[in-house]
Order: sequence, then structure tokens, then C-alpha cells
Amino acid sequence: MGLFTQDIKTMDDLFLHQLQDIYYAEKQLVKALPKMAGKATDKLLKQSFLTHLDETKTHVQRLEQVFRMHGAEVKAVDCPAIDGIIEEADEVTGEVADKSVLDAALINAAQAAEHYEITRDGSRIACAKQLDRADGASLLQKTLDEEKATDKKLTTLAEGRVNLRAVS
Amino acid sequence: MGLFTQDIKTMDDLFLHQLQDIYYAEKQLVKALPKMAGKATDKLLKQSFLTHLDETKTHVQRLEQVFRMHGAEVKAVDCPAIDGIIEEADEVTGEVADKSVLDAALINAAQAAEHYEITRDGSRIACAKQLDRADGASLLQKTLDEEKATDKKLTTLAEGRVNLRAVS
Repeated sequence: MGLFTQDIKTMDDLFLHQLQDIYYAEKQLVKALPKMAGKATDKLLKQSFLTHLDETKTHVQRLEQVFRMHGAEVKAVDCPAIDGIIEEADEVTGEVADKSVLDAALINAAQAAEHYEITRDGSRIACAKQLDRADGASLLQKTLDEEKATDKKLTTLAEGRVNLRAVS
Repeated sequence: MGLFTQDIKTMDDLFLHQLQDIYYAEKQLVKALPKMAGKATDKLLKQSFLTHLDETKTHVQRLEQVFRMHGAEVKAVDCPAIDGIIEEADEVTGEVADKSVLDAALINAAQAAEHYEITRDGSRIACAKQLDRADGASLLQKTLDEEKATDKKLTTLAEGRVNLRAVS
């Protein structure tokens, strides 16, 4: 990022910048999810991370399509927010001794990442619609729907299995 | 954080760790919101940041109450996620030349912070309930309700005023 350049002049520029930000975030998640699956002890949780890894790879490809729709270069910019979320996941899960509590901590970390993406995708879709880019908005909506479904699945896992085992 | 100490052994430990994390995050937001209000050009947006600053100060006090309810020391642990979100807000708003686009970028940044808190508070409430701490859960629920209301207000501002001006 050029911190002193004031490169963002229009909503189109802002939209593009945010695409680059979420593109970076999705790519970081592609790296983080296999590690989280490796740490998870609950089988359904492990599987849920691996399923979401496949979805996240598709999200990366969809973003590349949206870049092309806008005639823009496919490019990532550093996203300190997702770096922070992943760093925190590493730190907290490194501190957990009990297996069930570790699974609960992994779910919390994954939901923080999902909610970050849900927020960003929501903003991006609103922005794409205002820029009359229904094509990009509809692709981003598919990703958003999958992220919401993953978040719901993680809540069900936490409430139905992991947290119950962890407090028992 | 003691990265190699595996200090978190029970759900109580995890709950407490997460309280310390969100306590740090709320305190960082108390520092960030006046700066965001200072940058905002739309009067309603500026006012909305200042109103949420007052609410956030109350969130800090409520967390201190929850610590006391648990007989625990009031303490913050570094939260790289909120640091990342605030750093990103600083970076992106530093790059925006146009006033209305700046307001749109500020709303995006504020919503990322709100959604982070909403996620964390949601997890904390679920955890408090499972630990049979209805007293703490009910205090955290008040904070969660205010965060959701702020998020809604920001969406209304974005859709009704700021983004429309920015694309016109």
C-alpha cells in the first residue's frame, strides 16, 4: 500500500482496493485451514475445516473472475486484519492443553475469520450494486452464502458437541 | 501471552482468556473512535462514531463487572485481530482523497470492528451460558445488542447517504 499516495479517488477505486484486500484474506485462509484441520480433534470439526478449504479455493477463483469483469489486474494487498485474526488463532490454540477446549478455541477462531469475510463481502456486494455491477455482486453473493452456511455449521458443532464435551 | 505455557486447561480458562482479549479490543476502540469521528466528513456519521464511543466506554465497564463476577483480575491480553483491523482502517483511510469515498471507507472499517466484536461477544455469551453464568451472559448481551444496533445504523448511513454521494 502506498500510505501517503491517496490512490483511492472514486468508489470504483475503493471497491478494487477492497477486492485486493479480501483476495489476500482468502488466500491466507487457504494456507491456515489445513493447519486448523490438523489441530482439530473432533472428526466432524476436522471435516468441516477441510470442506471449507475447498470452498475457500473456489472463493479465490471467483474473486479472480470479479477482477477480470472489472478489467483489473488480479492483485492482493496486505490485510493486517486477517493476519491478526490468524495470528491470534495460532497463539490461543498454542496455549490450550485440553483437546475439547482446543476444539472450542479453534471454532471461535474460525468464526472470527468467517465473520470478517462476511462483513467484507457484504460491503463489497453493496458497493458492486451501487456501481451497477450486478455480475460481480452475484458472484460475491455465492461466496457470502457459503460463508454464512459455514458459520452456522460451526455454531451447531460448538453448541451440539464441542463445548458440551469441553465443560463436562 | 505465554505462547508455550499451555495455560488454558478448561472452558473457564478459555472464557477468561477471551474476556481479556475483548477487553483489550474495546479499549483500543475507545482510542480509535475519536480519530475516526475526526476524519468523518458526514455530520451524522461523525455523530454516530461519537455516540458509539460513549457506548464503548460502557462496554469496557461492563467487562470489568464480568471479570469481578468471576472473581478474576481485570486484565487485557494483546488482540492482534483488532490491532490489524484498526491498522487497516488507518491505512485505507490515509489513501482516500475524496471526502465521500473517505466516509464510505470509514464505515467499512467501523463495520469490520463491530462485526469482530459481535462475533466475539456471541461466543462469550454462548460460553458463559454453558458455564451457568447467566449474570455475565446478560451483561454481555446488552453490549451485543448495542453493537448490532450500531452496525445497522452504519449500514443505513452507507446505503442512504454516504455511498450514494460517493458514486454521484
